[in-house]
Amino acid sequence: MSRSPGRKQENHKISRELFVLTYGALVAQLCKDYEKDEDVNACLDRMGYSIGIRLVDDFLARSAVRKCRSYSETAEVIAQVAFKMYLGVTPSVSCSSATGNEFSLILDKNPLVDFVEELPAERASLCYCNLLCGVIRGALEMVHLAAEVSFLQDRLKGDAVTEIGITFLRKPEDRKHRKN
Amino acid sequence: MSRSPGRKQENHKISRELFVLTYGALVAQLCKDYEKDEDVNACLDRMGYSIGIRLVDDFLARSAVRKCRSYSETAEVIAQVAFKMYLGVTPSVSCSSATGNEFSLILDKNPLVDFVEELPAERASLCYCNLLCGVIRGALEMVHLAAEVSFLQDRLKGDAVTEIGITFLRKPEDRKHRKN
Repeated sequence: MSRSPGRKQENHKISRELFVLTYGALVAQLCKDYEKDEDVNACLDRMGYSIGIRLVDDFLARSAVRKCRSYSETAEVIAQVAFKMYLGVTPSVSCSSATGNEFSLILDKNPLVDFVEELPAERASLCYCNLLCGVIRGALEMVHLAAEVSFLQDRLKGDAVTEIGITFLRKPEDRKHRKN
Repeated sequence: MSRSPGRKQENHKISRELFVLTYGALVAQLCKDYEKDEDVNACLDRMGYSIGIRLVDDFLARSAVRKCRSYSETAEVIAQVAFKMYLGVTPSVSCSSATGNEFSLILDKNPLVDFVEELPAERASLCYCNLLCGVIRGALEMVHLAAEVSFLQDRLKGDAVTEIGITFLRKPEDRKHRKN
């Protein structure tokens, strides 16, 4: 556990609990600010997007991952490298479409909700962790991959697992097609 | 660096950059919500306090520190164990009073402002990291130590270092005396 002595290296690793509680304070503040769950969700997504476009440089520098050659490889890197690095968990990945551009990240355990017991009844449509969708979307955009990212299942809402859906948009018409 | 194989242990360690950017989003939101810097500072302190009273259990469980026998020892534990654990840095500690109840945590580098260039001119009184003061105050209160915690210097405001002052309040009259 001990490092060899020498030039003091900066330690970027932290315990995640302060982060998880601070994230909770952010969501609580947005729930004060916005009456509608949809507005809180949209705000979290926007904030996440801004974070993602800044975080991607840190991620590429720190992870030293190479350019991915497929959507499948990209989804695996998000799950196995990025989630591990920033949330300390590794979701499993499944491809959910024959066209090979839709993936699901399945979280058995979502550390961001560690201190959340359940959503209040009046906040039934809140996507508590929606910031993550924005972060993924923003980071992907910076490596020239347009994607739609959203929660498909959420244990906070009684689902068996938490599932984040990522749909890579290959052509502009994909976006229209996706809106169903 | 590698763990021995075996039952998969949960990893609580994360890279701090997502936390730092999320904290920035929280402060930015509060700056939208409140016109006065003093109100933002007070809100961050209140949020931090709520976090501190919940975080202390995690800290005691994970750090396995014993009961401190002096204010000086408590200040050292905050700097060397708590800051290291949750922010990845170790402030230096100095005792700043002959009465032995006032301490300063000196941060050469404050990771929470990693992505902040400078405060906007109209936010000159903002204590950007004021959440930390609340966290320390809340956590100390849970171990029956009343304290006042505030930023005394801040590199974001042009000071040479960032300095958090902790004044342990031994008796009720200390609080009145401190208000100058």
